[in-house]
Order: sequence, then structure tokens, then C-alpha cells
Amino acid sequence: MTRTDVALAQPSVAQTADATRVAVSTVIFTLRRLPGSERFSVALPLVTRTRDPHEGQWALPGGWLDHGESLEAAASRTLAETTGLAPSYLEQLYAFGAVDRSPTRVVSIVYWALIRADEIPDGSVENTAWFDATTLPPLAFDHNEIVDYALWRLRNKVGYSRIAHGLLADEFTLAELREVYEAILDRRLDPANFRRQVEGSGTLIPTDRFRTGSHRPARLYRYNQDVELAERGPLSTRH
Amino acid sequence: MTRTDVALAQPSVAQTADATRVAVSTVIFTLRRLPGSERFSVALPLVTRTRDPHEGQWALPGGWLDHGESLEAAASRTLAETTGLAPSYLEQLYAFGAVDRSPTRVVSIVYWALIRADEIPDGSVENTAWFDATTLPPLAFDHNEIVDYALWRLRNKVGYSRIAHGLLADEFTLAELREVYEAILDRRLDPANFRRQVEGSGTLIPTDRFRTGSHRPARLYRYNQDVELAERGPLSTRH
Repeated sequence: MTRTDVALAQPSVAQTADATRVAVSTVIFTLRRLPGSERFSVALPLVTRTRDPHEGQWALPGGWLDHGESLEAAASRTLAETTGLAPSYLEQLYAFGAVDRSPTRVVSIVYWALIRADEIPDGSVENTAWFDATTLPPLAFDHNEIVDYALWRLRNKVGYSRIAHGLLADEFTLAELREVYEAILDRRLDPANFRRQVEGSGTLIPTDRFRTGSHRPARLYRYNQDVELAERGPLSTRH
Repeated sequence: MTRTDVALAQPSVAQTADATRVAVSTVIFTLRRLPGSERFSVALPLVTRTRDPHEGQWALPGGWLDHGESLEAAASRTLAETTGLAPSYLEQLYAFGAVDRSPTRVVSIVYWALIRADEIPDGSVENTAWFDATTLPPLAFDHNEIVDYALWRLRNKVGYSRIAHGLLADEFTLAELREVYEAILDRRLDPANFRRQVEGSGTLIPTDRFRTGSHRPARLYRYNQDVELAERGPLSTRH
């Protein structure tokens, strides 16, 4: 094989050997009530791609990392630019770097967050729409796989941390908390068992206040603030 | 301010706006017996840097991502090249991307793994040495912070997964398992309480075999293989 043959056989590697670029994307989960139902489901915002590759397909909000900004700052900025959303914190989910996930070599650092429905600005944003997480259309790149992974992490995490807090008001009833768990886990939970487990976990603090309405009054709870929300451990916020 | 003033005020951004590079590093934990003690401690391999920045300082094993390899393949390759180590799996730890973590802009995807002492090849490797994780010298870049985060994850994870398995033979006594936990958590555990908690967790399967020696025979256990080791969830191995 001559030198020319090699060059012809591997043109993309030869031309773009140092062209790996870093992008960020975000998976923002919220709960919304299913039409005609008492139940909630997990939803997330997607953005229409306005250029190739995958022009016209839905994709996660995101964009390129700027030279002078941290990964998390890039995720916040591109999320705000595309969707208008500004969650109070973003947690790093995973770095996706498969060689063939994009026509050019792109490593995407994906962040995620939970927001309550009342934190979502009113009005529609151009090219953005909310989708049920479990019934997505085919997305650009490997974004279906990324959402699946984020859902898996959400379902795992809800079991051992107070992550559901990100979807609730500061004070909530046990029934409201159970509805969050039911939406995330996508199955019904026995109310009595749920109450017993949650009360035994030490993560909730009962208040003196009650939710009144058409049902009998239900006590309001709040999360024990001694437990950290983001589980960043010793990481400073500059990362 | 003229156009020239702006260019002079921000020379580094203008010159290297697209120069973000992707690197990989690995944190490999093992247990080793403390000299003159029955106890174990967590240790990891470090490599002397042979070029600037930080020439002569200790750093985590790692290197640049090649254009045609996945993140995990790059981590495996650079780990083997620098230390000769080849753990059976690597798990992604975190992507570190602070703007000032290196003189040039570098995003490092860090992987980690646990290996048993008997998986470490005999003989020394040039420029490589093993260090106690809790008494490290000042390392290059933000590598002290990375090790601290990896230790935090290890200590958290040992509580809710079978991660200690990566440091044990296929069959082990409860005393051997407790020594692993004591080394990772860096504190003594009550043997009776530990036995009760582990036996109640459902993660261990007792065998018919016993460890015999100077003490009374101790039953050997193995981990329940139904529990996944790497906790990758729905991620395929190509990421």
C-alpha cells in the first residue's frame, strides 16, 4: 500500500485528527398532569435543530462550550438561550463520547436538573416543545439514549436521595410526594406502605400546617435540610 | 475602546478560541496492608510528569483522547501505557472542565476502577509509584481535587452497592469484607453489627466452603451475581 492509498483510505482521520470539539446538553425533567387523568408523568423540553446534521429533528437543548466558560456555565447558558429555562442548579450526568455519535467528533458533557411546573416561564419559546419522556420521537444524534440514561438515573436516585424535592414546593403532603414517586417510577405505590417508608427514613420533617380542601386535611411536610440536594460531595461549584 | 484595544485585552481568547482539548485520566484504587499493621488502606498509582506543565510532579495516569477512540478506550489505553494496569472495567467518574485547571483549555474525562492487589503486575514501572490516597503530595493540575472526589464517591458507593467486590477474591469471609469496608471508610466497624447488616442485605450468598488457618474456620461468601457491578444502567459499552 502506498502512502497515497493510506491517505485515501482514511481521509476523515487525516483531515480532522485534532478536531474533537466539546459540546454541552441538558436534560430538564418536570412533572405534568396527563390529560384527563389524576396522574403525573415525566416531561422534558426539546429543541428543533435549525441546521445540519439532523436539521429539523428534535434534540436536547445545548450548544458548544465557549473557551472561557466552565462546563456548567456553558450548560446553563445554552439552556437559557434555547428554552428560557434557568433551574437553580444543574448536576453533571455523564460525558458521551462515542466515535460515531456525530458526523464530526463531538464529546458532549450532559447536565440534568429537575424543575417544578411553576418554575417554567409562561408562553411558548420558538422551536421548543415539551415531550413525555417515555414516548419520545426519534431524536438527533444519540439523544434518545441520553434521555434513557437520565431517566434511569432519576429512577435510581429517587430511592436513596431527596431528589424528588426538586419537583415539589417547599411544603407538601405525603400524597403529593407519592404522586412524584409514582410519576418517576411509572407505577402506583401503596399509600400505607409509602407513608411508613417515608416516615421511617428521617428525611422528612412534619410541620404544624395542613392542606385543606375537598378532602380531609393532610399534614404538610418539608425536607430535612441537613441532606444535600445536589450530591456534589467535595466538588466546588467551579467545575 | 477601539477594535485593537479589544484584541490586546483578550489575546488568549482570540488566539485559542477553538483550542479546547479533551484528555482522559484514571483513578485506580486498591487496598494495601499498612506496614506493621493488620489494617488496610486505600492506595492509587501516580505517574511522574515528564514534560511541562508541572514537569516532575506526580499526576494521575492519563493522556489525550485520540480522534478514533471512545472515551473509555482512551482511558484504558493511557492507563496501560503509563502503568501497565488493565482493570476488567472502568467506570466514568466525572468530567472536569474548570477554565483555569490547566494553562491551556483542557476538559478531562476521568474514569475510575478498583483492582485487587493480585491483579497488579509484579515489578516496578518507570515513573510510576503507589500512594496512600489520604496522604498525597501536591499533584499536578486539579488532580488532588479529583482524587478527593473519587474517594468521596467510593465511600458513598460502598454503602449501597457491591462495589467492594472489586477489591475481593470471588469468595471471601465476612471478616475480609469488613476489612475492605474499614479501609474505604477509614474507621473500625463493629463485627457483630457488620455481620447483621450484610447478612440482611441479600447481596451475599453463603457457600459450603470455609477458610481455615490459625483462627476458627470462617464461612466463605460470594456476591449475588444478579446485582450489576458497574451500574452503567442502560448505557452500552461503546460510550
